[in-house]
Amino acid sequence: MTMRVAVAGATGYAGGELLRLLLGHPEVEIGALTGHSSAGQALGSLQPHLAQLAGRVVEPTTASALAGHDVVFLALPHGQSAELAAQLGEETLIVDCGADFRLADAADWETFYGSAHAGTWPYGLPELPGARAQLAGTRRIAVPGCYPTAVALALFPAYAAGLAEPEAVIVAASGTSGAGRTPRADLLGSEVMGSMRPYAVGGGHRHTPEMVQNLSAVAGHRVAVSFTPTLAPMPRGILATCSALARPGATADEVRAAYEKAFADEVFVRLLPEGQWPNTAAVCGSNSAQIQVALDTSTGRLVAISAIDNLTKGTAGGAVQSMNAALGLPEPMGLSTIGVAP
Amino acid sequence: MTMRVAVAGATGYAGGELLRLLLGHPEVEIGALTGHSSAGQALGSLQPHLAQLAGRVVEPTTASALAGHDVVFLALPHGQSAELAAQLGEETLIVDCGADFRLADAADWETFYGSAHAGTWPYGLPELPGARAQLAGTRRIAVPGCYPTAVALALFPAYAAGLAEPEAVIVAASGTSGAGRTPRADLLGSEVMGSMRPYAVGGGHRHTPEMVQNLSAVAGHRVAVSFTPTLAPMPRGILATCSALARPGATADEVRAAYEKAFADEVFVRLLPEGQWPNTAAVCGSNSAQIQVALDTSTGRLVAISAIDNLTKGTAGGAVQSMNAALGLPEPMGLSTIGVAP
Amino acid sequence: MTMRVAVAGATGYAGGELLRLLLGHPEVEIGALTGHSSAGQALGSLQPHLAQLAGRVVEPTTASALAGHDVVFLALPHGQSAELAAQLGEETLIVDCGADFRLADAADWETFYGSAHAGTWPYGLPELPGARAQLAGTRRIAVPGCYPTAVALALFPAYAAGLAEPEAVIVAASGTSGAGRTPRADLLGSEVMGSMRPYAVGGGHRHTPEMVQNLSAVAGHRVAVSFTPTLAPMPRGILATCSALARPGATADEVRAAYEKAFADEVFVRLLPEGQWPNTAAVCGSNSAQIQVALDTSTGRLVAISAIDNLTKGTAGGAVQSMNAALGLPEPMGLSTIGVAP
Amino acid sequence: MTMRVAVAGATGYAGGELLRLLLGHPEVEIGALTGHSSAGQALGSLQPHLAQLAGRVVEPTTASALAGHDVVFLALPHGQSAELAAQLGEETLIVDCGADFRLADAADWETFYGSAHAGTWPYGLPELPGARAQLAGTRRIAVPGCYPTAVALALFPAYAAGLAEPEAVIVAASGTSGAGRTPRADLLGSEVMGSMRPYAVGGGHRHTPEMVQNLSAVAGHRVAVSFTPTLAPMPRGILATCSALARPGATADEVRAAYEKAFADEVFVRLLPEGQWPNTAAVCGSNSAQIQVALDTSTGRLVAISAIDNLTKGTAGGAVQSMNAALGLPEPMGLSTIGVAP
Repeated sequence: MTMRVAVAGATGYAGGELLRLLLGHPEVEIGALTGHSSAGQALGSLQPHLAQLAGRVVEPTTASALAGHDVVFLALPHGQSAELAAQLGEETLIVDCGADFRLADAADWETFYGSAHAGTWPYGLPELPGARAQLAGTRRIAVPGCYPTAVALALFPAYAAGLAEPEAVIVAASGTSGAGRTPRADLLGSEVMGSMRPYAVGGGHRHTPEMVQNLSAVAGHRVAVSFTPTLAPMPRGILATCSALARPGATADEVRAAYEKAFADEVFVRLLPEGQWPNTAAVCGSNSAQIQVALDTSTGRLVAISAIDNLTKGTAGGAVQSMNAALGLPEPMGLSTIGVAP
Repeated sequence: MTMRVAVAGATGYAGGELLRLLLGHPEVEIGALTGHSSAGQALGSLQPHLAQLAGRVVEPTTASALAGHDVVFLALPHGQSAELAAQLGEETLIVDCGADFRLADAADWETFYGSAHAGTWPYGLPELPGARAQLAGTRRIAVPGCYPTAVALALFPAYAAGLAEPEAVIVAASGTSGAGRTPRADLLGSEVMGSMRPYAVGGGHRHTPEMVQNLSAVAGHRVAVSFTPTLAPMPRGILATCSALARPGATADEVRAAYEKAFADEVFVRLLPEGQWPNTAAVCGSNSAQIQVALDTSTGRLVAISAIDNLTKGTAGGAVQSMNAALGLPEPMGLSTIGVAP
Repeated sequence: MTMRVAVAGATGYAGGELLRLLLGHPEVEIGALTGHSSAGQALGSLQPHLAQLAGRVVEPTTASALAGHDVVFLALPHGQSAELAAQLGEETLIVDCGADFRLADAADWETFYGSAHAGTWPYGLPELPGARAQLAGTRRIAVPGCYPTAVALALFPAYAAGLAEPEAVIVAASGTSGAGRTPRADLLGSEVMGSMRPYAVGGGHRHTPEMVQNLSAVAGHRVAVSFTPTLAPMPRGILATCSALARPGATADEVRAAYEKAFADEVFVRLLPEGQWPNTAAVCGSNSAQIQVALDTSTGRLVAISAIDNLTKGTAGGAVQSMNAALGLPEPMGLSTIGVAP
Repeated sequence: MTMRVAVAGATGYAGGELLRLLLGHPEVEIGALTGHSSAGQALGSLQPHLAQLAGRVVEPTTASALAGHDVVFLALPHGQSAELAAQLGEETLIVDCGADFRLADAADWETFYGSAHAGTWPYGLPELPGARAQLAGTRRIAVPGCYPTAVALALFPAYAAGLAEPEAVIVAASGTSGAGRTPRADLLGSEVMGSMRPYAVGGGHRHTPEMVQNLSAVAGHRVAVSFTPTLAPMPRGILATCSALARPGATADEVRAAYEKAFADEVFVRLLPEGQWPNTAAVCGSNSAQIQVALDTSTGRLVAISAIDNLTKGTAGGAVQSMNAALGLPEPMGLSTIGVAP
């Protein structure tokens, strides 16, 4: 079964990563590649690492360009997916890498995005309790945000096992590709090399309600999230340092057991041996997450840390994994668990 | 008044930064430069940026080499300072960049360093309430750790004003120079570029009790600290993201006012305008700290972030500033407030 | 046909890259993994990106550990391969990533390596004229050096077509992984980030005679090489800027035609469209080389530039490609042409 | 004598570096700061490292804003300086960091810049033979390009002593700040980290005729230059690898002697001890150049390598040094010879 696949937003970083992975997927044939300001150009100079597609011309992102494919990946700014999806028909598997269909709560959407809520689609994080069942057979997938992926994997075992109090404090460092490819002075190499800096401090980042949603669903009660994202001088990778007060009486053994159980059957999540800590370089270009957890007895905090590649597991790899899950293919098809290190 | 100054540990990163600053200090004449494994070598190949000292030969670190100077800076592994200090006499101003004399609590010292406590010296962070008075005229200075410097500056105004609950959660990213110059496989450029990784997670970092000591002293009660350090792919800089639950009823205006008051007269600490956040690149090579604070109303947490250069304000610059304070010189003498950016 | 493969030197960067590639090779089963100082340790903490092999224990590098495999990759310091090879028998395919068997001229070997010449094996750069025929069916392969790979691909078409004068000037920038994983102060992240520096200037680099050998063989006369390597602040990648005076009368069209012809059938070498220049990031983690060439009419120099990943096409990828060629497998098996970018 | 100084183009990288240096110059008072698209904004968010100037508002770049200063630095795109200079009057010292007045040959200017030649001003590289005399007392200075500064310092001693043949081959790596602060997709951090790439290959870079001019003037005959610039993953620094065939019979001792003589009295140029090679990190933020030279006896090439900070010695530092020379102040006033390393 070879699927014909289109990618809308093929010239951005998420689109480029989707194409890198899809070119190695044995059941995929690359169809239309669309873009906005780069429509009409050859892909070769825009994505110079994708040699096989160098001669392909970028089409404008329209429903007609995307029609006639088995799968359509949308890597677009938020707000554009709903209308396109409506035109593509119910038989097409639409995998939205944008934010439009991630949130269940319309009020949250309106608060953080300032527009009308488009709806909610099955959530493309198969490892999250309940998600895999919803993905099976679906024709609509909302790929999680990169930070929420890292945070959910780090903390859901603790909340699922009732081991953490309902306020999580998260400080995450992201590589610059997470900020996209649109030229901005503050993202120039000259600015970001040698620099660590926070942004959207104090609750304002749009990924915050998504984290709250994920952890609350697993916990069975509302979990508050204090989230501070920082920009790190590297192209790829997220390191999420997450903590919450441990429930009174929780032991290190219980914590360890909860995490071992949560990831026992997961191909792409690796709970590291005790004493070894995650490292973004080790997952670069792979769909893997590295996780470690510790109980700080002096403060009573459970500290869980995850490392992912924001473009792979955090976006395009998670999208392909979820596509596989939706289509009944083995989840790892076309994906690697091995990082490109050093 | 020209002071003759010796630097023990002149071939490490802290020693190199001390010499960079001292070469620009109008009242300093560089005397003995000592080292351990590099004794006998010329400094030129070891510190190629210090052209003026290229021909100076590194002497072994002994009390006799260090004797006869007005000021002796010690940039040595912990455990070596007490014996040297005893031999140098009470008239010499000894500025210890190591940990030996930072902690007041002997039990804390023994827990974290595993040896007998050497004592406590005036603390070389003039901006910390009470510290400046203790530094005036002293002949012994304990330079703070780099992380504790960043954390104290970010959080003491909140604790001094009674605006924060007594558990602080700190995630800090440090440039690699903080890990020193001794060759280690995990610090190779190939390993650290493209990588964010935590270490000493769960309360184990030796700077934790120093943070507790500083914040507790200012608060007037014990403040617990959950501290996670991470290694960032840059040579210099610390970005410390610090948070604590705000005291019930605390307002954003009160928080802002407390920080404005705390730093109103400080040359080296800059509370940024609202909406602008710290950036390690902006303080690179300078003795400045950039600070910003926000109140996250959705979680009730006060989030305070600081950026310093770990080698300058975090070590050598703080040491020179404290030397100036001890000797009655203007604190900024020989120090710059301007970072080398981009 | 599944081959059982051993890797000697599995804990270094070349060894890690070999394993990354071999884990994705459909006809390979990973056998013994050997090392020196790390023998007895689990691979998991040494190569944290190779999750599937995390529990494998490193054996000491001995002939008995390596015996009984169809293919043995040697990623060892030079001087150790000959003795091991002699003990492994003629039926084993030995792929030596070290220098021992690259040079045909014993005097060159002795001058640059200071020891007795071990011999000459078929040269593992299939794209080089004549090399592919020698690789077919061989049981001994000398993998080229990383710089010579980049330089040969950039310049052999010019020399093969008689378009360049016999002195080539080469300045190449390499990522730090080319310098290996043994801890050294000058390779610390703190030293290499923000730094470009040359080394082995003035003809001293051991890869120089290999370049001379390759280009002279293709040209049919001796080609002199002035080679200056520089260390760049990135983990991977080589950018080789190569030039030579063009033969009088040579035209840009002739040059272009020679390069197009040389690479017309090559999967892993991409002559870029005119006006686009190579970029190491675009080939990161891939076995591809990007090439571009121009004729500077104001000086009469032909300037050819190549970008490769030093660990992949420059070492481990070239080794696997050559193994495939020797065994009659498709050369691209287990290898990617797509870089991990950005 | 305190001079009132204006900076046109204060919001770019050259402008920011000028201000960093001028703030530390004892005879300078900062006057008008002008810009283009950022006019009306406070400097604080644009140049966050310049805390003292945070509240200063950027004025539009007009002659009236720049009038009434003793010294005016122009850090503008080429083509804008002549008209401004004409309006500022002959008494004002105008230091042009742009290209407009660097070239003596109008035809060269028109070929490379495509507009009418504005004229030629004294050349702001005091170390170049003849330049210092022209700078004394002048009211017009053309600051050299960053690459030409690095190349002239590396090669002029060889040409001045008649030791090199008249074709120089230059490959230089520059930090990204050399490409300016205007947002461009190919300069994003995500693109440049992990990447080395050439540009303007084949003789097209506008700095080429300036190199030809400098070396030819020193040699007394035309020197051809093959110049390939590359972009390196670091914010600052130029490493220029320069070579030329040595004149027949030239010895290593003669070469060394020529370089020692050329720089014997220079504060900012350091010929390194034999065996030590330049390193851009060692000169970061300083006005120093590190130089080394070797004779490759196997090819007969003289290889000279220089490292500078492109923003300091390569632009703003050279500008301030030349201002000092013009005004009769000590050249090093306000400038440091010490790099910020690591």
